[in-house]
Amino acid sequence: MDLQQGFLRFKKRFLTKKKDNEQEMVTMNHQIDLKGRTFEKRNQSAQHYVNGLNAPEDENLEAESHEDDLANENTVDGGNVGGEDSDERGTARASTFYVDQQESPAHEDRGQLNLLSAAFESLDYDTCINSVWLDEERTKGYTFIVKKDAARWLVVLITGVLTALVACAIDITIEWLSKFKYSWLKQYTDEGVENNTLAIPFFLWGALNVGPVLIAAFLGSYVEPVAAGSGIPQVKCYLNGVKVPRVVRIKTLASKAFGVTMSVLGGLAVGKEGPMIHSGAVIAAGVSQGKTTSFQRDFGFFEYFREDHEKRDFVSAGAAAGVAAAFGAPVGGVLFSLEEGASFWNQSLTWRVFFGAMMSVFTLNLVLSAYNGVPGKLAYNGLLNFGKFDDLTYEIWEFIPFLLMGIMGGLLGALYNHINFKLTAFRMKYINRPWRKIVEAVFVAFMTAVVAFLMIYLLHDCREIDTKSSEYPIQMFCKYGEENAAAAIWFQTPEKSVRSLFHDPTDSFSWTTLGVFFTCYFFLACWTYGLGIPSGLFIPTLLCGAAWGRLVGKLMSLLFPDQAWADEGKYALVGAGAMLGGVVRMTLSLTVILMECVGNITFGLPLMIVLMVAKWVGDFFNEGLYDIHIQMTGVPIMAWEAPPLSNNIYASEVMNRPVVSLRTVERVGRIVAVLKSYSYNGFPVVDSLPTGEDERYFKSFGTLRGLILRSQLTVLLKHKIFNENAEIWQDGKVDIHLFRLSYPRYYTLDQVNLDQADMNCTVDLRPFINPSPYSVMACTALPRVFNLFRALGLRHLIVINDNNEVVGMVTRKDLVKYRVWKHRGQMGLEELVIYNNV
Amino acid sequence: MDLQQGFLRFKKRFLTKKKDNEQEMVTMNHQIDLKGRTFEKRNQSAQHYVNGLNAPEDENLEAESHEDDLANENTVDGGNVGGEDSDERGTARASTFYVDQQESPAHEDRGQLNLLSAAFESLDYDTCINSVWLDEERTKGYTFIVKKDAARWLVVLITGVLTALVACAIDITIEWLSKFKYSWLKQYTDEGVENNTLAIPFFLWGALNVGPVLIAAFLGSYVEPVAAGSGIPQVKCYLNGVKVPRVVRIKTLASKAFGVTMSVLGGLAVGKEGPMIHSGAVIAAGVSQGKTTSFQRDFGFFEYFREDHEKRDFVSAGAAAGVAAAFGAPVGGVLFSLEEGASFWNQSLTWRVFFGAMMSVFTLNLVLSAYNGVPGKLAYNGLLNFGKFDDLTYEIWEFIPFLLMGIMGGLLGALYNHINFKLTAFRMKYINRPWRKIVEAVFVAFMTAVVAFLMIYLLHDCREIDTKSSEYPIQMFCKYGEENAAAAIWFQTPEKSVRSLFHDPTDSFSWTTLGVFFTCYFFLACWTYGLGIPSGLFIPTLLCGAAWGRLVGKLMSLLFPDQAWADEGKYALVGAGAMLGGVVRMTLSLTVILMECVGNITFGLPLMIVLMVAKWVGDFFNEGLYDIHIQMTGVPIMAWEAPPLSNNIYASEVMNRPVVSLRTVERVGRIVAVLKSYSYNGFPVVDSLPTGEDERYFKSFGTLRGLILRSQLTVLLKHKIFNENAEIWQDGKVDIHLFRLSYPRYYTLDQVNLDQADMNCTVDLRPFINPSPYSVMACTALPRVFNLFRALGLRHLIVINDNNEVVGMVTRKDLVKYRVWKHRGQMGLEELVIYNNV
Repeated sequence: MDLQQGFLRFKKRFLTKKKDNEQEMVTMNHQIDLKGRTFEKRNQSAQHYVNGLNAPEDENLEAESHEDDLANENTVDGGNVGGEDSDERGTARASTFYVDQQESPAHEDRGQLNLLSAAFESLDYDTCINSVWLDEERTKGYTFIVKKDAARWLVVLITGVLTALVACAIDITIEWLSKFKYSWLKQYTDEGVENNTLAIPFFLWGALNVGPVLIAAFLGSYVEPVAAGSGIPQVKCYLNGVKVPRVVRIKTLASKAFGVTMSVLGGLAVGKEGPMIHSGAVIAAGVSQGKTTSFQRDFGFFEYFREDHEKRDFVSAGAAAGVAAAFGAPVGGVLFSLEEGASFWNQSLTWRVFFGAMMSVFTLNLVLSAYNGVPGKLAYNGLLNFGKFDDLTYEIWEFIPFLLMGIMGGLLGALYNHINFKLTAFRMKYINRPWRKIVEAVFVAFMTAVVAFLMIYLLHDCREIDTKSSEYPIQMFCKYGEENAAAAIWFQTPEKSVRSLFHDPTDSFSWTTLGVFFTCYFFLACWTYGLGIPSGLFIPTLLCGAAWGRLVGKLMSLLFPDQAWADEGKYALVGAGAMLGGVVRMTLSLTVILMECVGNITFGLPLMIVLMVAKWVGDFFNEGLYDIHIQMTGVPIMAWEAPPLSNNIYASEVMNRPVVSLRTVERVGRIVAVLKSYSYNGFPVVDSLPTGEDERYFKSFGTLRGLILRSQLTVLLKHKIFNENAEIWQDGKVDIHLFRLSYPRYYTLDQVNLDQADMNCTVDLRPFINPSPYSVMACTALPRVFNLFRALGLRHLIVINDNNEVVGMVTRKDLVKYRVWKHRGQMGLEELVIYNNV
Repeated sequence: MDLQQGFLRFKKRFLTKKKDNEQEMVTMNHQIDLKGRTFEKRNQSAQHYVNGLNAPEDENLEAESHEDDLANENTVDGGNVGGEDSDERGTARASTFYVDQQESPAHEDRGQLNLLSAAFESLDYDTCINSVWLDEERTKGYTFIVKKDAARWLVVLITGVLTALVACAIDITIEWLSKFKYSWLKQYTDEGVENNTLAIPFFLWGALNVGPVLIAAFLGSYVEPVAAGSGIPQVKCYLNGVKVPRVVRIKTLASKAFGVTMSVLGGLAVGKEGPMIHSGAVIAAGVSQGKTTSFQRDFGFFEYFREDHEKRDFVSAGAAAGVAAAFGAPVGGVLFSLEEGASFWNQSLTWRVFFGAMMSVFTLNLVLSAYNGVPGKLAYNGLLNFGKFDDLTYEIWEFIPFLLMGIMGGLLGALYNHINFKLTAFRMKYINRPWRKIVEAVFVAFMTAVVAFLMIYLLHDCREIDTKSSEYPIQMFCKYGEENAAAAIWFQTPEKSVRSLFHDPTDSFSWTTLGVFFTCYFFLACWTYGLGIPSGLFIPTLLCGAAWGRLVGKLMSLLFPDQAWADEGKYALVGAGAMLGGVVRMTLSLTVILMECVGNITFGLPLMIVLMVAKWVGDFFNEGLYDIHIQMTGVPIMAWEAPPLSNNIYASEVMNRPVVSLRTVERVGRIVAVLKSYSYNGFPVVDSLPTGEDERYFKSFGTLRGLILRSQLTVLLKHKIFNENAEIWQDGKVDIHLFRLSYPRYYTLDQVNLDQADMNCTVDLRPFINPSPYSVMACTALPRVFNLFRALGLRHLIVINDNNEVVGMVTRKDLVKYRVWKHRGQMGLEELVIYNNV
């Protein structure tokens, strides 16, 4: 039994770790025994830092035993402890008490799925309710609450409107510029056929593709690498609680918006929808913070929204507004946010998100209706992205071909994802310099022109010119009054091509044209996704699907001639849905988005079934493309549920040890030393540091009093809020604003100027700590720990023993590193390798 | 400032309670001091119970001090401590440490919104991972996980199909029987007009209304009172985590389904949609448990789903399937479940819920298409509940009338809710016997006939007979070839009337007819909701709204004659949406449901805006009707967020004290005594009970070792799993199945047969307790406690002190009793009164 093997594999992995401490943990009175486990003592870096700062001797003495651990841990941390050693028992390192962390994967290990990057920080959804926070709250009344609530609606409104405006700008620029491009190309092509100088339009096409793509690639490689790609994976990570650096900056927005315009204009197999969703997220983050770090302006608005919790809520509203603007699908937008970020959802948030999406569509339709010459006609069908399907009826037995198409979509999607996965791995290994990325993008742009031109040149699929279907009819080698059908697909943006495949009359395209187009486009699209340019995935995938869907439609009308239901466009829609479902593996939101895009509800049921089947079939082989990319970049994204069968893993087995704890009243010198030596972001605050050898198995790090964050400590140091500087308190300068001002880019230690005298001062941490951090006992089962993280959006969870003493600390990576895999009906648990850099 | 007053009111309420212990709590080292607070000592009931069971003296001695508290607490608990005393400081009782609980509200206090009933138990979303549970898990592999997951999909599939079949049965029965009713009535009416014997059809109508309603009222009063009403409030409570007794039983399902058929047939202003949603929930609960307690059959399926967590997931899927079956709205169904139960939502659950809803619609359309003579035509427009709106275009400036209509809907909805609130209060005071409920229902049924008959008789609104609009045209006093328009509305089920108002051609109804109909129906519907019969709220509300919406439409075409957009049906739809939004105050799900009901997407935007405005306006005055009914029955439903400005309230202020704790190895006699004396459902398990006077302010109840539930204790007692009966362990009979078997109706103490010898035995609780229950420190702020409850679905939360000793216990009611009210722009916090019975 394959499943049994998976289970055994999982058992084996854990048994080695658990054997020696399982018995103690299971006994109900949590007796924590001494085990003959000693830590090697080395005095290295931490000590050096302290010495470098000329800390007096008593400092070192006072916390000696602790500093020893500091030093020791630090060494291990940076010391490249091999992951392959971790099964070896008996050595000090072979224990989950140490973070098994490697610097960077070896060249041949790049582009794997089983790694995690330690470079990503978590967002903290939990509010630190400390004394200074309470001091502020006590000055507030319900008026403030009502105002704050009103401000939330206002932010969402502004976000919706701005997102729509950005989307309109992208839309209109693309439409306007591609009008020039294609009419120019048409002119030269027509002349070229006449004068037999087809090389001219060919190279012109190449140049017109390469030019814009060069700009897009420059933006996506040199200016803002995080702007490359669709942006949906990044938004997904953000909503999941991972801080992807620079993902919600204005610079990213500008690069993304301008870059995607250029990518689409460059004729690549890309869409503009993903980047629009990302834009919405950036706009929401920007508006809600009332300041921009890029332009160094602080407008002073919405200061109370400067925390991860509020910001993330707004980002989910922004993403929804983005979907709404990209597809004209407000409900789809809400559902998209829901499918990606549902763990922190509540009713009033839902309504706000919905409102934002609604306002976004309203603005979009208002602007676009004016652009289309029907100002104010918001219900104008031409505004629908893929054109309106008026009456899509179907027969009950058509579910059979639909199901088969769902399976086909799942298979093709899995293939697409597999190829793209291999390609991305290749890219991570070899195309890892900006200039190489630019060369690749330019090459793909040129190849796209080659493929398109060859198709038009070689395929003699002629049809009568129908000005409704094609704006730039190319005669090529057809008779007078006829046009080349392949050119009709290629001489427009991919979005319009989808519309053509959905709505062009029966027999507009020949079997060969569709077949060749599908084959070429499938590989082109697969090659294009992952280039260093801003590019969406939805449209090219839909276009592939529409092509083979239309082929199925042709087959159906061949088999059942003269049947009203055998509509090529309908099958193209089903194919498009199946293909998209097979690639991205979303169901609910995708169904609604497609329904809203074609303005039809009655066809919802078949679409749902097709998407569901495509997802199931695809999931049999691999994961959705977004998830693959997320995993390859090593983002510690949290699954929806704890791994199954993990109830006999305890918090004590996943937690980090040793823990660096601070005293309630701590010396500045020690704080600086700790901050320099460790990259940790949260430190438990304890009564007093343990002295001497702790006789117990789980050495305690002091009785828990609270939790303090690195960001808070740097603020304290920066503003010198020391006990010796009493005047700073008297001036009333110490309040929550100090901490908000530095959000979200906290001071680094380099920005803190401390002189020698300061090092001897002390800080009373008590007014600033979170006095009741969430904590669990060492014997808590993993799923309970997981649920706490998942449901409350935690960043740090303190593990305590029976006497409320700190024994360990659990962070997101400790939980994420156990990942469930499912493949071809098998299932198992794998432990990911954590690297400092991926 | 009104808001300021609200704030002051809130401050005052808490200050009195906090004054004496705030200082201690704020200091960061949580020093817990002695306060000269002594507990009166009385030895009453608890002692008596123990004596009654002839427990030996040492039992009493051993835990004496504890038993004292037991007795004392119990006395206070039952002793009708007046809520009005709670502001009096200095007395032992005036403290939040005691549950201020009254037996039952006074007659004049019935039907208030500010009370809570202690009769409702919470569901426990948290799984108790104890040793016996782990023993089972260790025998399972991934095969089991895959099987369990497949079983989940299967359950959802079955639920969807069954729900649809029940809905079809209701639909078809109503349609079939009302065909008889109205054709019979038509015949007598036509004859009556001819022979001037209109009394005959009048009384016939009365009788045909009263007959079925009598059956419905009997079912809703005597057979199964919980089946009365719409069922949506009950489902909402269940999803929120409150166990409403008997709400998911088969008997309830049968009463509900048959009862609502009779209610609709009885011509009342009721819909069948709410009950269908409730039916879906019952079916899901039933199918997932694989057994029926009503019929005492255990099929042995799905035993592993027998826990609150799994069951609630299935119920949310069932509710979605119910919505899908009621309105043909699968996406709306998912969103309905989301809006009502979103706090425990995750992606895979969403997809399952979606699948269930989809299958439900598929089955529904399959059966109904066959019934309608177009078998297999699932996209047949006639299947849409309110008929298909093909092309609903609108002008941009029409948003102005839409907005005004939204405001109107909000106002009318608030009025509707207010009247119904007063009426329900009256009913709770005076119509509280089954027979009175039946009399009232019969009276309403008769009055409905009177109103309808008078309208037809008195209004001379004649129009040409259009067989498409009216199936049973009544000529009454009109010319030959014409029919009475009022009769056209009344001679059909309310659902069809909605369809008529949406789709009948312009000028089908006169101003007077619509005006009179709206006025009468508004009050009739308001009177009807809350009767002791199964009845839905959606359809009558939509009908009211459609009536005044059509009036607005008429006004628009009067003001702007010959404009294509001034369509009466469109305005009827907007009015219906506004009215429904104003009454129930849902936005997202309602928008989608309406969109799916009329098969139109382009009109989504105006509908959304109207619904949002109606909600805002309505919320200014009161809450949604479902929420009002939930509050009046005193269900401790949990809000979405913690009350604002409550960060300076600590867990120590809301927790229950004293706590009854059990020892890890406890004597049977004491367990029985504790279970008899207290109605608590969870007991902390501690190392040893504290002896002597505790010198500290917060007396500790022992060091926390775990939590055991009442249900687990009764199983232990029932099966005599005592240390003295070692053979029961050797036989391998002690496993998790024992506990699952008794789910969800646990043994009561009466079902446990213990003889004198058993009383002296001891039980080792350790293998059965939850060894790591969620706990918080006494200084934790209320919002953090609230978030834990909300996000994890807790039932008990243990409050510990600095040394991990139990000092209190927080349950759902302790949190729910602080409720935020908002009214006319004011906002404040109120403390609800807890009664044992409402």
